[in-house]
Amino acid sequence: MSLLDNINSPADLKQLDRSQLPQIAEEIRKVIVEVVSRTGGHLASSLGAVELAIAIHYVFDLPEDKLIWDVGHQAYAHKLLTGRRDQFDTLRQHGGLSGFTRKSESPYDAFSTGHSSTSISAGLGIACAKKIKNESSKVIAVIGDGSMTAGLAYEGLNQAGDTHKDKDIIVILNDNDMSISQNVGALSSFLSRTFSARKLQELRKDLGAFLKWLPKIGDDVYQIAKRSEESFKTFVTPGMLFEAFNFEYFGPIDGHRLTHLIDILSNIKHLNEPVLLHVTTKKGKGYRPAEENPVYFHGCGSFHIETGNGTCEYNAIPSYTDVFGKTMVELAARDERIIAVTAAMPEGTGLSAFAKRYPDRFFDVGIAEQHGVTFAAGLATEGLKPVVAIYSTFLQRGFDQIIHDVCLESLPVVFAIDRGGLVGEDGPTHHGLFDLAYLRSLPNMVVMAPRDENELRRMLLTAVEHTGPIAIRYPRGRGTGVEIVDPIRPFSIGRAQVVREGRDVLLLAMGRCVTDSINASEILKKDGIAATVVNCRYVKPLDEDLLVKLAATHTRIITVEENVRQGGFGSAVLECLHDAGCTGFTLKRIGLPDAFVEHGSPDALRTKYGLDADGIVRSTLEMMS
Amino acid sequence: MSLLDNINSPADLKQLDRSQLPQIAEEIRKVIVEVVSRTGGHLASSLGAVELAIAIHYVFDLPEDKLIWDVGHQAYAHKLLTGRRDQFDTLRQHGGLSGFTRKSESPYDAFSTGHSSTSISAGLGIACAKKIKNESSKVIAVIGDGSMTAGLAYEGLNQAGDTHKDKDIIVILNDNDMSISQNVGALSSFLSRTFSARKLQELRKDLGAFLKWLPKIGDDVYQIAKRSEESFKTFVTPGMLFEAFNFEYFGPIDGHRLTHLIDILSNIKHLNEPVLLHVTTKKGKGYRPAEENPVYFHGCGSFHIETGNGTCEYNAIPSYTDVFGKTMVELAARDERIIAVTAAMPEGTGLSAFAKRYPDRFFDVGIAEQHGVTFAAGLATEGLKPVVAIYSTFLQRGFDQIIHDVCLESLPVVFAIDRGGLVGEDGPTHHGLFDLAYLRSLPNMVVMAPRDENELRRMLLTAVEHTGPIAIRYPRGRGTGVEIVDPIRPFSIGRAQVVREGRDVLLLAMGRCVTDSINASEILKKDGIAATVVNCRYVKPLDEDLLVKLAATHTRIITVEENVRQGGFGSAVLECLHDAGCTGFTLKRIGLPDAFVEHGSPDALRTKYGLDADGIVRSTLEMMS
Repeated sequence: MSLLDNINSPADLKQLDRSQLPQIAEEIRKVIVEVVSRTGGHLASSLGAVELAIAIHYVFDLPEDKLIWDVGHQAYAHKLLTGRRDQFDTLRQHGGLSGFTRKSESPYDAFSTGHSSTSISAGLGIACAKKIKNESSKVIAVIGDGSMTAGLAYEGLNQAGDTHKDKDIIVILNDNDMSISQNVGALSSFLSRTFSARKLQELRKDLGAFLKWLPKIGDDVYQIAKRSEESFKTFVTPGMLFEAFNFEYFGPIDGHRLTHLIDILSNIKHLNEPVLLHVTTKKGKGYRPAEENPVYFHGCGSFHIETGNGTCEYNAIPSYTDVFGKTMVELAARDERIIAVTAAMPEGTGLSAFAKRYPDRFFDVGIAEQHGVTFAAGLATEGLKPVVAIYSTFLQRGFDQIIHDVCLESLPVVFAIDRGGLVGEDGPTHHGLFDLAYLRSLPNMVVMAPRDENELRRMLLTAVEHTGPIAIRYPRGRGTGVEIVDPIRPFSIGRAQVVREGRDVLLLAMGRCVTDSINASEILKKDGIAATVVNCRYVKPLDEDLLVKLAATHTRIITVEENVRQGGFGSAVLECLHDAGCTGFTLKRIGLPDAFVEHGSPDALRTKYGLDADGIVRSTLEMMS
Repeated sequence: MSLLDNINSPADLKQLDRSQLPQIAEEIRKVIVEVVSRTGGHLASSLGAVELAIAIHYVFDLPEDKLIWDVGHQAYAHKLLTGRRDQFDTLRQHGGLSGFTRKSESPYDAFSTGHSSTSISAGLGIACAKKIKNESSKVIAVIGDGSMTAGLAYEGLNQAGDTHKDKDIIVILNDNDMSISQNVGALSSFLSRTFSARKLQELRKDLGAFLKWLPKIGDDVYQIAKRSEESFKTFVTPGMLFEAFNFEYFGPIDGHRLTHLIDILSNIKHLNEPVLLHVTTKKGKGYRPAEENPVYFHGCGSFHIETGNGTCEYNAIPSYTDVFGKTMVELAARDERIIAVTAAMPEGTGLSAFAKRYPDRFFDVGIAEQHGVTFAAGLATEGLKPVVAIYSTFLQRGFDQIIHDVCLESLPVVFAIDRGGLVGEDGPTHHGLFDLAYLRSLPNMVVMAPRDENELRRMLLTAVEHTGPIAIRYPRGRGTGVEIVDPIRPFSIGRAQVVREGRDVLLLAMGRCVTDSINASEILKKDGIAATVVNCRYVKPLDEDLLVKLAATHTRIITVEENVRQGGFGSAVLECLHDAGCTGFTLKRIGLPDAFVEHGSPDALRTKYGLDADGIVRSTLEMMS
């Protein structure tokens, strides 16, 4: 029987002797690798934070003390230690444990997470609330160095260090020198200044030598100060940076040495001020394939434990992401104005090949969607054609910048919105279900969604040739498997395509829902129901002429979209038909309901929410009866 | 004839001798004070940046070199120097000059601005584009210390200092120790460490004394380094901070000394790396009332030049902002869980009295809307009742946090959204025209808008008693003048109010449009047209039962909202009626068109866009004919 089998809550962990903790760490790693090899998940980050989770639970008293794991993808050990061991093999499965921390899942999860860099802000809110309520328990936020590149984290630090009010928060900087991909930006190179203890020693030696040399300058205090200020700037350490924000800084310490971690956390626990503990860890720690390829194992599918090789069979059908990446390289070859911008997702958005081929035209701005959008707007003012590739759910962070910096002057920025619609196992924080609604309300914006790989290619060409803001929203996962057609030809903006003609019902579909609508029409045909199926392509502008014409000959209309219903594509169709004075039709909008959609496989979710062919058939039959 | 009369472009300015520039500065200040005393505007900031504008245009070559004024409210001198002198008295008037910089207004405005902290990101985009195009002209971003508190600015700094690519950008930090209100946060207290030259001298003296003392410790290099690192951290200067981001730092220098400014800009011009010039200025410089009360004169109405007193007559009708602020104090007295959160707008959102009365329950997070929302979510997890008061247009910055950190777990955070609808002279960057659309698409969110001051009070009580996310959206400016009713009673969520009954047309109105709809119904009555007028109160959830009932007896329906039409309140009504199976009606949605709305007085804009009583009458008559 393993030690872990007896840990049903952090209280059980506290019963153990310190000397037993490394064994617990080893057992946790084994369970994580074993389960994630079947379920897929965020392996590398969680393996890197095992000792951190153990040490925190050993020293602090949860759930009275509040612990927030930034993003929450590194919290598997935390889940195993907080009464979720028995359910751990349901990780990321429909109805099972979330891949992130969820307040509604456990009292040990102080805050629901999924998007980056919220932990300091949320932790500060909790710390301030505790102060107001005269409670003395502690708040701990664990944040990766990648998450530190986001403006939200900086805003949190800035308020935490405000001297007008006392704040009692412990921020643990989990520094593994990368976010999902390699980190970028000044902060990253800055943190890495102290990445190794050896490097730090060298700096200190240099500093010492400099100090010894100083008195030779003489007694001109101003002169000394001036020179020292100039010279010391290269010696500024992360400690100094965080001290500048009024944090008490400790570190960097080795985040895999449990004794060190426990000692320092036990000391820090008694401070009543903002504290930053800088911990260095290794992504994938303890599982060699993940240590060697932390980018692949950041978020991976199922794999063979022995080799680390993925278990899913070879599939010749490319993903939309692949098609986007490949087309970007093609188009960039003939138009040197095309620039790629991504926010810490070069691999995830398929831009690795572009980055390699056109390094000067590729910009990874870090986890900084706001900045990425405004940066692209700046590029566009100079006549370039920036393509901003960001997942739908993360683009929400750039909403104001899309409106204010891009749409207001109608600048030609292309938004390549990957992971639009249901994403599956990552769940409610990662589904991209709002973009059609929020983008279509913006003046000057064009919003399109391809039905297959060829349309994605054609829409990308259409986009880079367009003179204003334009968004292409495409799904996670594989395409339809159509043969790729060359050369790529652009579309006329705002033109839809009738793909089936019938007279009983009009199916207006957007993006990947076109295929399911066609399949539904085949099923309906067997019941003697003839459907017109339209690949609408554009949420904005809609093909008003076609819609009005079709509404005159169809009394039953169904819209199909993988987006929230309220304000989405179907809503746009309703507006369009009413504005045009159409009457005498009934319209049903198929889409996601007015509720957050849980995690689960995309197909299962589509079935559940009536978005697959059977669901469309069911809606049609209901309408006909 | 003044010198300024001959300045029709920066080329004319360059013809002048340096010795003539102070006179130009004086003349510019005179024009600014004179015009703004009539038009209103951002006086204090623009007076503070006069020498900066002169020096930049004297040294750099615009429009080849690109200049971005962050926010753009400090750019009046820049406008006067770049060929807009003759139009300057049209400032902020409908059809006249914008109160901010607009790319479409002048080739000298490199980027359109209005919201804070975009300048580094946009400037970096321009600088990178220039590098790609092999152009050697310069990019200058002028950003205030207040704007530096926003995460977007930090994200820009982080990329600028990325050593993987060379970037050539000059950031001028215009440090006046305040944004609109007093600055908050660690950065502010940090920057103020060198605010005065005297203070800096003192620091340097201390540092010098420390250095002289050092050798006594002996030769243990590690020991020296350790101690010096600990001790120097309190000596870290802004220079060191920006150097840590790989910027070459200069300053702080007096931003009103033209000679210094010109000398240093001339030197900096030849550097090919990220440069940060730290300049200290005085808000309101040269006009005593503004120097003494920079908060009032940040954005002011018309005033008497001699005294600085406002010219508008006393008006007993309070603004919605006033009513909100007063009600917050009232409600806070009886519910100690109520907390106020604002983002650098304590005066603008009416929370000054609350801040004074309940300093421990008031949080100004700085220009950090993202953080403000997540911080409030943290407060809410601890059982408190945070009320986040942010202008509609700025809340767009917190969109992702509203979805992800508040709505996902349905946390009871109240959004008090001031300046919803048309705001007037500040124009397209400041109108709040998207909130109803983007908020109503979010699960768990309640969205309401009061028709008058009493309803605002009742909705605020309703909101703090609600158990999930809830938004109250109210307009800029005065209320309707109704008598304030006590005690405040809460509303039933989702219940609308029928205020007039008729049978010819159904007017469904939201918020301030209720009054205009009632007025319209009075006019229509004279034409023998009887209108039913409904104060809908809730965009989400709609009063479905009532709407369906009324749709059964009215074939003509008009919705009225001060929001974009696409996806807005009218769109929600359409969805509701269709989902309920209502047929046989025609519906017209009155609202703002699918285009950005220019600046101008709110009344003039309402008339132009058919949102006033006459416009509603016109729409009704069109529908009847």
